Amino acid sequence: MSGHMTPEEFRAYGKRVVDWVADYLASVESRPVRSPAGPGDVRSALPAHPPEEGEPYDAVLADLERIVLPGITHWQHPSFFAYFPANASGPAILGDLLSSGLGVQGMVWATSPACTELETVVVDWLAELLGLPGHFRTDAAGGGVIQDSASSASLVALLAARHRAGGGPGRHAIYVSSQTHSSLERAGRIAGLGTGRVRSVDVDPRTLAMDPGHLDSLIREDAAAGLVPTLVCATVGTTSTTAIDPVPRIGAVCREHGVWLHVDAAYAGVAAVCPERRWINDGVAEFADSYVTNPHKWLLTNFDCSVLWFADRVPLVETLSTLPEYLRNAATLSGEVIDYRDWQIPLGRRFRALKLWSVIRWYGAEGLREHVRLGIALADEFAALVRADERFEVLDHHPFGLVCFRPLWNGLGAEEADEATLALLDRLNDSGELYLSHTRVHGRVMLRLAIGAPATERRHVRAAWDRIRAELDRR
Amino acid sequence: MSGHMTPEEFRAYGKRVVDWVADYLASVESRPVRSPAGPGDVRSALPAHPPEEGEPYDAVLADLERIVLPGITHWQHPSFFAYFPANASGPAILGDLLSSGLGVQGMVWATSPACTELETVVVDWLAELLGLPGHFRTDAAGGGVIQDSASSASLVALLAARHRAGGGPGRHAIYVSSQTHSSLERAGRIAGLGTGRVRSVDVDPRTLAMDPGHLDSLIREDAAAGLVPTLVCATVGTTSTTAIDPVPRIGAVCREHGVWLHVDAAYAGVAAVCPERRWINDGVAEFADSYVTNPHKWLLTNFDCSVLWFADRVPLVETLSTLPEYLRNAATLSGEVIDYRDWQIPLGRRFRALKLWSVIRWYGAEGLREHVRLGIALADEFAALVRADERFEVLDHHPFGLVCFRPLWNGLGAEEADEATLALLDRLNDSGELYLSHTRVHGRVMLRLAIGAPATERRHVRAAWDRIRAELDRR
Repeated sequence: MSGHMTPEEFRAYGKRVVDWVADYLASVESRPVRSPAGPGDVRSALPAHPPEEGEPYDAVLADLERIVLPGITHWQHPSFFAYFPANASGPAILGDLLSSGLGVQGMVWATSPACTELETVVVDWLAELLGLPGHFRTDAAGGGVIQDSASSASLVALLAARHRAGGGPGRHAIYVSSQTHSSLERAGRIAGLGTGRVRSVDVDPRTLAMDPGHLDSLIREDAAAGLVPTLVCATVGTTSTTAIDPVPRIGAVCREHGVWLHVDAAYAGVAAVCPERRWINDGVAEFADSYVTNPHKWLLTNFDCSVLWFADRVPLVETLSTLPEYLRNAATLSGEVIDYRDWQIPLGRRFRALKLWSVIRWYGAEGLREHVRLGIALADEFAALVRADERFEVLDHHPFGLVCFRPLWNGLGAEEADEATLALLDRLNDSGELYLSHTRVHGRVMLRLAIGAPATERRHVRAAWDRIRAELDRR
Repeated sequence: MSGHMTPEEFRAYGKRVVDWVADYLASVESRPVRSPAGPGDVRSALPAHPPEEGEPYDAVLADLERIVLPGITHWQHPSFFAYFPANASGPAILGDLLSSGLGVQGMVWATSPACTELETVVVDWLAELLGLPGHFRTDAAGGGVIQDSASSASLVALLAARHRAGGGPGRHAIYVSSQTHSSLERAGRIAGLGTGRVRSVDVDPRTLAMDPGHLDSLIREDAAAGLVPTLVCATVGTTSTTAIDPVPRIGAVCREHGVWLHVDAAYAGVAAVCPERRWINDGVAEFADSYVTNPHKWLLTNFDCSVLWFADRVPLVETLSTLPEYLRNAATLSGEVIDYRDWQIPLGRRFRALKLWSVIRWYGAEGLREHVRLGIALADEFAALVRADERFEVLDHHPFGLVCFRPLWNGLGAEEADEATLALLDRLNDSGELYLSHTRVHGRVMLRLAIGAPATERRHVRAAWDRIRAELDRR
């Protein structure tokens, strides 16, 4: 066959795929978390050439099972503790399916008004759920938009900040710390800031939080040297250890010097769905020019769904807008609508609001809070277990789902200890029973155990701890 | 309810959503192509606040039908002729569903080897299907990667080109024509090239193709003035009229001056799946440093799926790579694997290869050719109909699915004629029976009718022509 799949064929195959996904989700726990595949294993099992004639969809499903699955590291496995979680959930998958089925491209309002307006509503909803300030709402001066990732969001924020700051190429400087996500340095590279224009602000050696005093002196030095201090990135929940930069004090420095404050809360920001965690966003209402958090990490919405808000959307739209003739339309010219293509790097866009809408409606505020609270509670329990074992060191616990820890390896020097920790990590991950990642803190390798997959229950965290201790004993 | 959707709930709701999508696809023809919604209609019908408690998924489906659908412009409608098509297809929707269900994040090889390796294989397959040169393959010096859009792809190409060219901020110049996609100018803005660094090369007034002679003199002028000529964008199938720039002659100019040649074949490139259209890529094998085409436009793969190839991947990876400690892993350090995060703007990535794989396997090369050939044949037929009516002018037809034409409005001045054409366009689109867009050629408004939606048959094209003539008579 080589024709289009008819709606009736789609109905039949679609149900088979839904069954496949339901079976996968029900059985994911029985699979090794991390794929045992080596480089080239999957590739060499696939045909070198595309088929000349079409094949029934069953052939795809058979190869998915036989060739693709052994090469999958299962992010939705209850014992996936690496990186940060990338939550998928039933309602999000269904929202994505609706988006694919509708197949609309929402580059401007006019190309599907609902694609734009539902997005505006759900990002306003999310702002309310997280207690973000009213001026981030689209009916005020700001507005939110769904991006593919916090990396792209930070680049977009930088472009808006650069526009507001004015000044020619090669004179803009931005401010990060050693703990800031690597995408900020990369955004500076992409934006062509030039060598040495991404300044590294010191951190407090204990908390790993950015030092506002050092930030202030770097900005003064740069301004005195004729540079244009353009953007400071403060992080709420750093990637390495979920450290929290002092946003109120950083914000005050930014305000004094007229520098854009971007707050990167990619992982941790959604924790503010719980009123008792709202303090993590202290200073945001007063000082943040832009703020990003990723429902696709911990808030049950399939990748990609990163939400970026602005306090003032004017510099954003001014720096990114284009209006070629073929996109001119009455709605755009009326100024009454939002054209989200002016809020992002690509021109085209999928209907991603459907999945966030599905998630918020299915879970409600209550369900979202319950999920975040469980992750935090399990991380607290895990940290307490590790702390109670004198063979381990635990990094001062931050109030999210991540625990950083390491065996002390009494008797080993620093380098040997790091090697032993990495070897332990490899053995654990090779087991297929759990999957952790690592980082370096003050030069020392630490293990990262991040809790937040929807399938993770207390028993999985307990089992992880048992496995870690057993592997340590085995050494 | 506020808990997670269980696999069994997912199974039941999933089948309901599949039925919804199948019904939608089967009935899309009965809906008005362009949404009749006005600004704020959808937004005002949605609750201002998120729900406190979760709701059953039926509530989402009910509101989808009641609130969202009236705000949808139906890109998959058989009478959608606006912009360029954004093909969805059954196998692509299913591939996307599998991607959402697996919920993996393929930022590096190690985070799900199959996500990377299947992508490598399918972009190599696509290169073969399109007759692209062997050095674009990953087992040679180059390689392909799936991007969200040609806009992002062109930005990535510019970053690689800038890296290869060397030189400091404010000195790089790039070369486009008045017909080049607006994303190139925007990429220059994002990359911080500075004012006046995006040069506009003249076009042949008849063909609207870039003038290689003028390109050569602009590059010489800039080099003499101490600038760094960095990238030329040649287009195969421009957005406005599907004009084709003379890639072999442009390529020779690039080669002489050591300037990066990026070929933007976003819409038209996939037509090379038909051997008789391979000539559109003349010069690509000899001269192109990068090449982009979008399966999400005409090749039956849901947005987003844009494929970008490089002749040499080294400058790309050098300019975009980062390696924070938490992403260090044995596979990356071995150099034996690809980490696609170094090939794109964002860090994270979905498993988009699944949908392209599904499409190529379901249709086979034969099925893809059949789809493209039908679009071209119907466009030829439509152009012949318009040409045979003396009340109309047709732009020299280009060999793809787009026809540009306008009523001559004998007796009206240029400005009045343009107004009359735009008014005709509004009346046609307001009818809900078909949806066209427009452009300007030599300052005159022309209608654009682009054929390529999978559901479009001869009768829809005939009906469009009848409707256009009837509306003209009614005036």
